Amino acid sequence: MNQFISVEDVPDINHLVDLALSYKQLPFKDSSIGRNKTLGMLFMNPSMRTRISTQIAARNLGMEVIVFNVDKEGWQLEFEEGVIMNGKSAEHVKEAAAVLGKYFDILSIRTFPGLINKEEDYSERFIQQFIKHAGIPVVSLESATMHPLQSLADIITIKENWVLPSLSGEGQGIRRPKVVLTWAPHVRALPQSVPNSFAQWINVWNETDFTIVQPQGYELDEKITQGATIMHDQDEALKDADFVYVKNWSSYNDYGIVLCSDSSWMITEKKLEKTNQAKVMHCLPVRRNLVIDDEVLDGAQSIVVKEAGNRVWAAQAVLSEILRTSEIKNR
Amino acid sequence: MNQFISVEDVPDINHLVDLALSYKQLPFKDSSIGRNKTLGMLFMNPSMRTRISTQIAARNLGMEVIVFNVDKEGWQLEFEEGVIMNGKSAEHVKEAAAVLGKYFDILSIRTFPGLINKEEDYSERFIQQFIKHAGIPVVSLESATMHPLQSLADIITIKENWVLPSLSGEGQGIRRPKVVLTWAPHVRALPQSVPNSFAQWINVWNETDFTIVQPQGYELDEKITQGATIMHDQDEALKDADFVYVKNWSSYNDYGIVLCSDSSWMITEKKLEKTNQAKVMHCLPVRRNLVIDDEVLDGAQSIVVKEAGNRVWAAQAVLSEILRTSEIKNR
Amino acid sequence: MNQFISVEDVPDINHLVDLALSYKQLPFKDSSIGRNKTLGMLFMNPSMRTRISTQIAARNLGMEVIVFNVDKEGWQLEFEEGVIMNGKSAEHVKEAAAVLGKYFDILSIRTFPGLINKEEDYSERFIQQFIKHAGIPVVSLESATMHPLQSLADIITIKENWVLPSLSGEGQGIRRPKVVLTWAPHVRALPQSVPNSFAQWINVWNETDFTIVQPQGYELDEKITQGATIMHDQDEALKDADFVYVKNWSSYNDYGIVLCSDSSWMITEKKLEKTNQAKVMHCLPVRRNLVIDDEVLDGAQSIVVKEAGNRVWAAQAVLSEILRTSEIKNR
Repeated sequence: MNQFISVEDVPDINHLVDLALSYKQLPFKDSSIGRNKTLGMLFMNPSMRTRISTQIAARNLGMEVIVFNVDKEGWQLEFEEGVIMNGKSAEHVKEAAAVLGKYFDILSIRTFPGLINKEEDYSERFIQQFIKHAGIPVVSLESATMHPLQSLADIITIKENWVLPSLSGEGQGIRRPKVVLTWAPHVRALPQSVPNSFAQWINVWNETDFTIVQPQGYELDEKITQGATIMHDQDEALKDADFVYVKNWSSYNDYGIVLCSDSSWMITEKKLEKTNQAKVMHCLPVRRNLVIDDEVLDGAQSIVVKEAGNRVWAAQAVLSEILRTSEIKNR
Repeated sequence: MNQFISVEDVPDINHLVDLALSYKQLPFKDSSIGRNKTLGMLFMNPSMRTRISTQIAARNLGMEVIVFNVDKEGWQLEFEEGVIMNGKSAEHVKEAAAVLGKYFDILSIRTFPGLINKEEDYSERFIQQFIKHAGIPVVSLESATMHPLQSLADIITIKENWVLPSLSGEGQGIRRPKVVLTWAPHVRALPQSVPNSFAQWINVWNETDFTIVQPQGYELDEKITQGATIMHDQDEALKDADFVYVKNWSSYNDYGIVLCSDSSWMITEKKLEKTNQAKVMHCLPVRRNLVIDDEVLDGAQSIVVKEAGNRVWAAQAVLSEILRTSEIKNR
Repeated sequence: MNQFISVEDVPDINHLVDLALSYKQLPFKDSSIGRNKTLGMLFMNPSMRTRISTQIAARNLGMEVIVFNVDKEGWQLEFEEGVIMNGKSAEHVKEAAAVLGKYFDILSIRTFPGLINKEEDYSERFIQQFIKHAGIPVVSLESATMHPLQSLADIITIKENWVLPSLSGEGQGIRRPKVVLTWAPHVRALPQSVPNSFAQWINVWNETDFTIVQPQGYELDEKITQGATIMHDQDEALKDADFVYVKNWSSYNDYGIVLCSDSSWMITEKKLEKTNQAKVMHCLPVRRNLVIDDEVLDGAQSIVVKEAGNRVWAAQAVLSEILRTSEIKNR
């Protein structure tokens, strides 16, 4: 694996999932494969889970980690080609990426979309330019339109929480779990990266019955959701769900716009009644009583904290795979 | 020891002091007891000594350390129960603490008081909610009303600097040192955490004659100061003092208010004349010529830098004790 | 070596250069000489290359590293003597430096000039006060008027890139390379630290023919540039150059002022035609098409990324030398 930007970089999802689960059992079993290697972590935007879980993952593999908050500890980068740099940007990504490629062995980057220009965001030009100029493996810590470390952790969590019922002899293990990704309200315009990425991974993984439900106008990019059942009636969609993945996103078609703030889309205990005692997932941070209510989050069906815990093992599997198989020459 | 929030968490102060002093002699004697363990350090507020000394302490024990400036690298946390989170806070402490409890083995937190609502600050609800939801040992890096790592370092410093005179045969070692905590002026409204904590530890330690002196209206919480001699005449209080602990704080009764800016409360050489060549202590940062004057801080009686140096050994003793004796299951 | 503030601290430049190049070949050959030692890195100002390359260098030597963004994670420091600290500064450098001297084994500091008061900036009082009060070796990560880690990397880069042609039998190795430091335009008033430092090091190194060219009014301090050929005609100066070091700086005589924004001083392919196929250097960050144009930076003559890569080995040589030879007692 030479980079980790989307599911397309992954030859075998289940291999990564199994590797991650093996690290969950034995976190330090590969504690020397990253020896004398340094992971650079660049943040253009805030981060808690990704920031911390990836640091722990790298250290579990014996890697050094250097965190660089580009926006706060450095200066604004320029991504336009050919521009006369007499404005706010002090350095072009061409130099920044090339230099960081000299310093680090793996470069990881978080960068949010502007949510103004769809074409620009979906070209992923920020992270693509880092890839182009760094010359070392690049790992997305969430980019403009994708969040693959989250999606890998999500699949790990589904696999982990779906295997268990089968052991209880109820026969659930022999059917595919029904997974429903549902839009939920929020006060701000949020990126589509988490739902995009979840949809993409679930589709490629192809081990679930997958439904996406959202209000009219919130449909995601068809190229990404293709293969999923697309619905607009939340109650109908939730019926018999085994996993409910809750997430707000802004409109893809009416790009970056908040079209709906209908609080009836919030996930409540009542809504879950029609599910198959569905486990409730969310990438976090979650705004309580706006996206999901207290009762659900504090109840037994919520696995959001377990899911966040799995971020460590997802990141560890990805870094391990890159360290062991990347054909990109370091330094 | 399962947490370190106040002196009440400490079974035996002198045991911690002796452990700290042993680390001062041999910093790396326990350099593998923290192996494969990670200390999370969360800052809601600025910090220099606490931030750096605790990192060094953890590394001396072989622990990994991850620093997270919540306010700058993350987002605002919500601490209210049951609120509809449609405002500025992006994540509830319930999720944040629970997730961090998955990632770290010990969680340490700095959080200042609001100094507006006394009941809220003295309930210590911020740090208490982290304790409740993290499920791992929590160490205070200064909370709304207490600063126990500072107080432990203070007692180490008193013990260290009181033992020496006894060796000179002057017999000072066989009497209890007189310790005076004195209020001093400042331009801002400061928390009561350092004086509260110092008073609490000195009282429980019970190896000194302890006096607290402050202007009328600056009396600290009686439940905390009980056992100390309370005075309002600084000159009278300083008489025959062996240690003078200088600190500003805002009013406890008139909560968070600056009632007095009388510069005659500043500690000067002249003031120290009536003491028993008292050693002068302060937690730092100290505003020169406002709280303590240059002559004292640059003179032989000031031990503020030694005191700050002891912060490493205090933190190392606390982390070591938690690593070895905590009954809270990690991860 | 007890400190690294300017070339005057270096007994033998070529020894440092050779040590650096040996680390470039074998980064981990001295990976235990920094064991149980901690490098403190204090940033008063932003930094990318210096911040990251120095961290990697220290880790390569087995040192612990603690980064402290004084301006963002701490508070404002006071550098004036005798002042009543009732303003914005919360701590005096006397305490801050003395305490950090207790915590760290080597202290490194980045601090920019104010560019308002020449005498104050050129007294280097900020870093000098840290040296005075810390009591441990101090390394400049760029100070008000000097950037010695950059200059050492620059000389490494010149040596590395000058040796190669001689191997091709063209006989270039037996003459001294012609090095030209040229001013270039910028939109902001920048410090003189990089050109000062480069001039100082190149002069002391004394293995090149050295020319400095700038518009009228941009002459640097004569005490520093003495020994170099000083010119004002860029085309004339560039003739037969082997290395062109490009950099903007604000006026020294008209202190801190931008006197010229003549875009004809920008380095372009056309300008380089008169050189001896000169290698183009810049400390970075560089504003494209303002200081140097795209064609040059993207072309074969630019060695700015290699130069930045050498920052690791320069820092590693300096830290190694201090660890092995400093007579200042740590802690």
